[in-house]
Amino acid sequence: MVKVGVITVSDKGSRGVRIDQGGPLIVEIVSELGWETKVTVIVPDEQAMIEQKLIEYADDVQVDVVFTTGGTGFAPRDVTPEATLAVVHRLAPGIAEAMRMESMKITPKAMLSRAVAGIRGKTLIINLPGSPKGVKECLEFILPGLSHGIDVLQGNTGDCAEQVTGDGCSGKSRTAASAIRQ
Amino acid sequence: MVKVGVITVSDKGSRGVRIDQGGPLIVEIVSELGWETKVTVIVPDEQAMIEQKLIEYADDVQVDVVFTTGGTGFAPRDVTPEATLAVVHRLAPGIAEAMRMESMKITPKAMLSRAVAGIRGKTLIINLPGSPKGVKECLEFILPGLSHGIDVLQGNTGDCAEQVTGDGCSGKSRTAASAIRQ
Amino acid sequence: MVKVGVITVSDKGSRGVRIDQGGPLIVEIVSELGWETKVTVIVPDEQAMIEQKLIEYADDVQVDVVFTTGGTGFAPRDVTPEATLAVVHRLAPGIAEAMRMESMKITPKAMLSRAVAGIRGKTLIINLPGSPKGVKECLEFILPGLSHGIDVLQGNTGDCAEQVTGDGCSGKSRTAASAIRQ
Repeated sequence: MVKVGVITVSDKGSRGVRIDQGGPLIVEIVSELGWETKVTVIVPDEQAMIEQKLIEYADDVQVDVVFTTGGTGFAPRDVTPEATLAVVHRLAPGIAEAMRMESMKITPKAMLSRAVAGIRGKTLIINLPGSPKGVKECLEFILPGLSHGIDVLQGNTGDCAEQVTGDGCSGKSRTAASAIRQ
Repeated sequence: MVKVGVITVSDKGSRGVRIDQGGPLIVEIVSELGWETKVTVIVPDEQAMIEQKLIEYADDVQVDVVFTTGGTGFAPRDVTPEATLAVVHRLAPGIAEAMRMESMKITPKAMLSRAVAGIRGKTLIINLPGSPKGVKECLEFILPGLSHGIDVLQGNTGDCAEQVTGDGCSGKSRTAASAIRQ
Repeated sequence: MVKVGVITVSDKGSRGVRIDQGGPLIVEIVSELGWETKVTVIVPDEQAMIEQKLIEYADDVQVDVVFTTGGTGFAPRDVTPEATLAVVHRLAPGIAEAMRMESMKITPKAMLSRAVAGIRGKTLIINLPGSPKGVKECLEFILPGLSHGIDVLQGNTGDCAEQVTGDGCSGKSRTAASAIRQ
């Protein structure tokens, strides 16, 4: 079972002057996959505090994936990507690219997302938008591909190049995708 | 009113042996939006000189957005992205991704663009291509989403997560985008 | 004639317990373009060893382009992108973006690719997937645009902004692309 941590980044949410909707929505959506949210927190838009929680969830709680929500835009205090970049050991640029590429089909403002994703130890960290609508859209885009990544990161699967007699890593989805394109 | 700075990066342009077309074209296109170009300059492909102008336009002139044109390709002296990365405080990867994603529909050579975008203080810095055709195409791709980003960066708008009863950040464009897709 | 180096990154391949398919496939595909592979090697997933070979191929052998295959996923020992980032002088983000954007049309798992591309001196370095299927797909996506980039990097071509009377950099492909879109 995949273990999840959720960090809501919001000045107003952390002071209790706004109800956090993004965080609970993440918990709800991933629970439909059977994933269990182990820890959640609301922190202000302070880089050091975001970093501290990311490290705690990855190193101490040892969740498989941390989702952040909020703090990825152009506002002067938006620093969630900076906190994430400061603590990950390896980047996973394709996840944020995929979110933006799909979101761009809905609104050109999607290009303003500064979200990043990366790996710290055995924990995947992914920045999601702050708005409930953005959270839902982005999770829908990335969840189909994410389970495999988490399995590989945990060492639960063989490496892709071994499947030399089959279609390689992208084999399973090939037929469906080909059908869609026709 | 949005205040703009334009930096043309070109060895030949700076020596006067080539007429700068990219810079004046940027000034013309943004003026159609009512944006005012406060400062323009032509500098050679020298990283230190590009950095110096970027810092001057952001910190001293305090324009809202700086567009560079030129120096983003594979030529040995192309260093505009490196100069930009050296001075921005926060990255805005989605803007360059959007330019390349759209340009790829026109030519596969678009993947050779090494353009980046980022934020220094309250100034957005965006690398555009050197060719007038590339400048025009890229500005057309990004301008629809850019005004909102500049507003947020200047603190002229509420944060997205607040619009809890509406469609969130992407609300305004939703209907139009949905219509286009049908 | 374009000179190529190929580095297969694989723990099992380097110990001889798995036959390398990705490396020979790269050699075969680029030979169809008349490109000559000067050097090939299989190294384990050790960052220092990958870096050493990248530097050797770029600085000593002076190939025009190095393709790596393998080590770009989420497995704990996958560090090919980290080795590449450590040795390149300039990033070329559009190449990896293009590979992922096209691969995403085949499978959502493509977003898990952590591949990067960049330039060291006059050598372009590109991370390809480990699976033969992934190698073939990604090379098909990027080879159409790559020759021009290599020419520019070697100083064999004028800069794009000079073509002021034509269509600029994207001129050549314009008609074909427009035709395809109709």
